[in-house]
Amino acid sequence: MTKEELISLTALSRAALPTLECEEARINALYAIADALAKNEDVILTANARDVAAAREKGVREAMIDRLSLTKEKLAAIAEAVTDVASLPSPTVIDREYTHKNGMLIRRYRVPLGVVGMIYEARPNVTVDAASLCLRSGNACLLRGGSEAFASNKALVTVMREAIASVGIDPNAITILEDLSHETVDTLLSLRGHIDLVIPRGGKGLIRRVVENAAVPVIETGAGNCHVYVHESADVEMAVRILDNAKTQRPSVCNAAETLLCDEAIAKEFLPLAKKALDAHKVEWRGCEKTCAILGGIALATEEDYDTEYNDYILSVKVVSDIDEAIEHIARYSTKHSECIVAEDTEAVSRFFSRVDASTLYHNASTRFTDGGEFGLGAEIGISTQKLHARGPFALDALTTTQYRVYGKGETR
Amino acid sequence: MTKEELISLTALSRAALPTLECEEARINALYAIADALAKNEDVILTANARDVAAAREKGVREAMIDRLSLTKEKLAAIAEAVTDVASLPSPTVIDREYTHKNGMLIRRYRVPLGVVGMIYEARPNVTVDAASLCLRSGNACLLRGGSEAFASNKALVTVMREAIASVGIDPNAITILEDLSHETVDTLLSLRGHIDLVIPRGGKGLIRRVVENAAVPVIETGAGNCHVYVHESADVEMAVRILDNAKTQRPSVCNAAETLLCDEAIAKEFLPLAKKALDAHKVEWRGCEKTCAILGGIALATEEDYDTEYNDYILSVKVVSDIDEAIEHIARYSTKHSECIVAEDTEAVSRFFSRVDASTLYHNASTRFTDGGEFGLGAEIGISTQKLHARGPFALDALTTTQYRVYGKGETR
Repeated sequence: MTKEELISLTALSRAALPTLECEEARINALYAIADALAKNEDVILTANARDVAAAREKGVREAMIDRLSLTKEKLAAIAEAVTDVASLPSPTVIDREYTHKNGMLIRRYRVPLGVVGMIYEARPNVTVDAASLCLRSGNACLLRGGSEAFASNKALVTVMREAIASVGIDPNAITILEDLSHETVDTLLSLRGHIDLVIPRGGKGLIRRVVENAAVPVIETGAGNCHVYVHESADVEMAVRILDNAKTQRPSVCNAAETLLCDEAIAKEFLPLAKKALDAHKVEWRGCEKTCAILGGIALATEEDYDTEYNDYILSVKVVSDIDEAIEHIARYSTKHSECIVAEDTEAVSRFFSRVDASTLYHNASTRFTDGGEFGLGAEIGISTQKLHARGPFALDALTTTQYRVYGKGETR
Repeated sequence: MTKEELISLTALSRAALPTLECEEARINALYAIADALAKNEDVILTANARDVAAAREKGVREAMIDRLSLTKEKLAAIAEAVTDVASLPSPTVIDREYTHKNGMLIRRYRVPLGVVGMIYEARPNVTVDAASLCLRSGNACLLRGGSEAFASNKALVTVMREAIASVGIDPNAITILEDLSHETVDTLLSLRGHIDLVIPRGGKGLIRRVVENAAVPVIETGAGNCHVYVHESADVEMAVRILDNAKTQRPSVCNAAETLLCDEAIAKEFLPLAKKALDAHKVEWRGCEKTCAILGGIALATEEDYDTEYNDYILSVKVVSDIDEAIEHIARYSTKHSECIVAEDTEAVSRFFSRVDASTLYHNASTRFTDGGEFGLGAEIGISTQKLHARGPFALDALTTTQYRVYGKGETR
């Protein structure tokens, strides 16, 4: 699509905003979507079957196929998530009120951002999640999903557009980008003033592409090179359990651990126990010289290992002389997502918590908890690894901005 | 300065952060700065006199000289503002707390951003304001002021560094950039990962330069092409008073009005009265054809006029057929700073408030109130015209980000 065509598309999205002004209408629209997803199950599953067949033909690996596939049960869960979003507390509220000494009432409202772009990969549930969260917060969305899920996404969007139109909302509040070329994405990212926010969700390559090319505002999500640091005061059995969970419960996600840091004073005791536990999941260890000396038979970790988010059953390991070396290592390699200290010494914990710069810090708990649902947000758009606007798991609130509204009786300065 | 030199400088700033961890120490440091500014009055005023003499020699216009000049009284006011910042509520608080059903305590802390760059123009008071707001919120700052104020800024920073060092804070928490070249600014703006936020404060050119060149996070401030819209239901006398104040009370600032929009139904009554009031300040009018027909003897406004923030005694005027035309005009030309409707019809007000996309909206009050002090924030870093992170007048809060801290007892997922 040309720049002009894309601008026209965003203008249609923006023109839909007035129909989203009334919160009750937005909530009704979400229930209409949930109903329509159930009623149109066949159409959606048929479209999804086409995507799955095409992916199989292309030799896409089974884990990806699994993420791409919809079933009756998955679709019902997606519809239920939509009604959950409908029942969340309103994100568009007055969050500050001040009366000027001259009598003017000054209120700060949380208001929708406007037109929100989502660029994401192959899971079709993101299409519905993103649309429902945008709708709940009064935003129009422009969805650019992965090509492998295009038929599914298109069917889902068609069903959602019809559903919201049936309750009086402009269907252009939910728009799917049909041109999936990289050039079109790049043009989209250049439309400062036409798009209010773009959120990339997916792998490292996608996120880097968006962050580096965007002239529009972006919330950077996802990359997680997370560390578990075992302090010399740690409860060793607990440390093994936490490392095992952080590394192996679901290694493909951003809040899984990639690197183990272990105090030298406890390394001879801890490392063999940890190795034994992780052997049950066939985790490959890559360690520093000290680690290799203690464990034997494991590969030497390179600089690149410490810098890598494996998203796989691989663990890089470093023995550190003390907490400060651990903090320095994290400062150097962390993507500022989730970092954990296992320790009984409260001074060590407080040093770690005040010095480590990441969205989420853990004391004696697995990094795997970094998630909007787990943190009580009720939903999640993504996990932000930047510092401005939203950091860590973020939800509806991050889809709003503020607007001061001042009510006067002719006041002048 | 080379990129490496600048990175070293930011590393020194970052290394100062641990000495800012204790809030009491930060508050003590602010009182120490206020004292030191009083004690070192002579040194500061002497340095400022050098700046003023050099500016006079260069033929800088008197309004600028006035902004550049420090006096005993101005310096005392600057010191008092520092103690005001010391007495503001803490920005580094716990703002969310959630207990997971497994018992884990999840807290969201507001924490300092880290290293904050300020790029600003000739008023030396900004040097102290910015340093004290950064200090109060636990951030280290890197200050790049205008060349005209360099001797003053250098003296102020030297005094502040000595003051904070005397109470145990690393003086590198306040750093002045001594190389004022544009190349160095551009390099600074490229240091993603080394600088956590850059805030530009100054004219349009400066802000555009920063926004367009920055790879680091930025809060866009300042540009204000603000409108006063007089609805047909307006109290005409009140509308004259508000327009007069918005245009002439201090035309050089961003919250001053630049364009008058007037409903056709009320134009013949309102425009001559408004013209008469603004004539007292010798305001130059530039109007649409209808305005010219009603008033006679004024210039025809061009497209460029409607797009211009005059910051001067000039007003562009357009007669509109109704509120929707006014809203469209604002959508096209506004910088999304402050927009005002004068009306008695509450439906018109609610339409204006829900459809106009700007940081601050006024009903029957002057746009001149958009200011942190006026809005009860106690201080102001700037007025944000972007939507993410901070919008409208912003203060200490915008110098923090959030960090989740999770306190477990070995919980796994």
